[in-house]
Amino acid sequence: MDILANKVMVFTILYVIGIAAESITGTISAGRKNMDVFGVITIATITALGGGTVRDVLLGYYPLTWVAHPEYIIVTFIASVVAMLIVQHVVRLHKLFLIVDALGLVTFAYIGSDIGYQIAIHSAYSQNFQLIGTIIIAMIMAIITGISGGVLRDILCNDVPLVFQAELYAIVAAIVGILHTLTMYYHIDNLLTALIIVIIGFTLRLLAIFKNWHLPKIKYFT
Amino acid sequence: MDILANKVMVFTILYVIGIAAESITGTISAGRKNMDVFGVITIATITALGGGTVRDVLLGYYPLTWVAHPEYIIVTFIASVVAMLIVQHVVRLHKLFLIVDALGLVTFAYIGSDIGYQIAIHSAYSQNFQLIGTIIIAMIMAIITGISGGVLRDILCNDVPLVFQAELYAIVAAIVGILHTLTMYYHIDNLLTALIIVIIGFTLRLLAIFKNWHLPKIKYFT
Amino acid sequence: MDILANKVMVFTILYVIGIAAESITGTISAGRKNMDVFGVITIATITALGGGTVRDVLLGYYPLTWVAHPEYIIVTFIASVVAMLIVQHVVRLHKLFLIVDALGLVTFAYIGSDIGYQIAIHSAYSQNFQLIGTIIIAMIMAIITGISGGVLRDILCNDVPLVFQAELYAIVAAIVGILHTLTMYYHIDNLLTALIIVIIGFTLRLLAIFKNWHLPKIKYFT
Repeated sequence: MDILANKVMVFTILYVIGIAAESITGTISAGRKNMDVFGVITIATITALGGGTVRDVLLGYYPLTWVAHPEYIIVTFIASVVAMLIVQHVVRLHKLFLIVDALGLVTFAYIGSDIGYQIAIHSAYSQNFQLIGTIIIAMIMAIITGISGGVLRDILCNDVPLVFQAELYAIVAAIVGILHTLTMYYHIDNLLTALIIVIIGFTLRLLAIFKNWHLPKIKYFT
Repeated sequence: MDILANKVMVFTILYVIGIAAESITGTISAGRKNMDVFGVITIATITALGGGTVRDVLLGYYPLTWVAHPEYIIVTFIASVVAMLIVQHVVRLHKLFLIVDALGLVTFAYIGSDIGYQIAIHSAYSQNFQLIGTIIIAMIMAIITGISGGVLRDILCNDVPLVFQAELYAIVAAIVGILHTLTMYYHIDNLLTALIIVIIGFTLRLLAIFKNWHLPKIKYFT
Repeated sequence: MDILANKVMVFTILYVIGIAAESITGTISAGRKNMDVFGVITIATITALGGGTVRDVLLGYYPLTWVAHPEYIIVTFIASVVAMLIVQHVVRLHKLFLIVDALGLVTFAYIGSDIGYQIAIHSAYSQNFQLIGTIIIAMIMAIITGISGGVLRDILCNDVPLVFQAELYAIVAAIVGILHTLTMYYHIDNLLTALIIVIIGFTLRLLAIFKNWHLPKIKYFT
């Protein structure tokens, strides 16, 4: 109970850090596209809250987080306004910023797989398929929560989504989702295993950034 | 009862004018992109009905308006076909058209905040936060209803959404949403206050268009 | 009972062929955009399953097909991986591929109108409007199921959606939807009429491809 309460508190803090970081990435992208302050704040908010929103709409999981907790919209609003005011420093603090963003990605993926698991484990999968089916859905929800905000940002800014071309971004979300599903399935999900998973995902993402790891690309001759 | 019935009738008429106007903007945008008649009608329909659709999907508010009332699809279809036939005049009547579009924006925002309010007021916000939380959600639903149709139109036409760069468009929707929320919260919502709000929003939007008011843009040195 | 079971089996087979074909179109499009293998598989999956997903989200029809049946995600995954390995041949087998894609389109449209019909027939339309309203919704769901996957693929690849410019694609989906609605409404929906509808839609689409039929485009002088 105590531990569980701690886990909720730890992930709430990580979540708030995550949406603030994503709001800042949205602010930077939108600002480059000659948008007015309203456009910038809107895209910042969509970048921050879009991942969880897409996930919950796909699962029919209502009310959405930010409808139940409008205070999260205040967080993304303030993060975007502050980022606009100090944008030169944000750009200069590029590396620090990537680190905070990585923490957000891993947190979003963890929370996403948690919700995906709750839905999938109660689905009518055949017994042999139950673990596989649950892992697939939880993993997809981890990826969707982790990347959809950035994908929406890039669509609204009329770019090809970066995440489909970048360093191991989605694959980190997938790994976090699979590990978290396994801890839930085998009832070893607690604050300790949660933090281990977060640290694994976070380390992988930082290694990918600073060692410039990439997935292979497909070469077409056409 | 009489007044309430009048209010519903007035807003139904305004809504039909609004979706017809939005259908015409979609027809003009899509026609510029070398689309065939089917593509044009589809984008016109999405432009007209997309705002309410996005709002209701985000709120889990089913059935969608046009599923319950397919007659609105007939309205947008006819508006698009007529616009294709007289498109030269539509383009020449640019100013008249902007005025009708402004009426649509304000109507959509009013209806959007109404539905957002119904959801938010029944949410489990803490007592101190109730008014703020309700205003945030109702305002966001006003903005979403007012602008999402145009955003979807611009994404499908592969443009950067105009609304993020244009005159006070979203801000007018936000103001309409906030004013309408306050009238509902303090139980002074009636046909008279509704029309006052519509006129305020409409006047602001026309002033923004004809005086070329803009929100400030962010200048990045990167 | 026997016939009905056969119909379900036939359409399940057609559906699996359809999502595999759509997954391959997504793989080809994404591969041209310099995406990594993860991006390619993601876009392939969205192309294959996006149409049904958009339809079910619009109808509030939960759980989504692929949440209830994650095995379909395995199908699209394998189709995408195989397509990447043999992509040169896929491109060379262009005509065969268009034929399979046409089968997918018709199947998706048939299934989409089926679900749209179930929702619309229970809606509170006025008696005179019931058939018209039901046809509109079933037809729109046929179109949405048939084209949304490809539209999402083109948005994510930052292209103007092809379907709004291409040969009779959506119009075939619409015709399939209308015919299927009429067979359901007049209680002559069975394996035989279903196959006749599939063959009509399939033939129309192949004629459009090989005779290069187009809907007229709108010429704007602006």
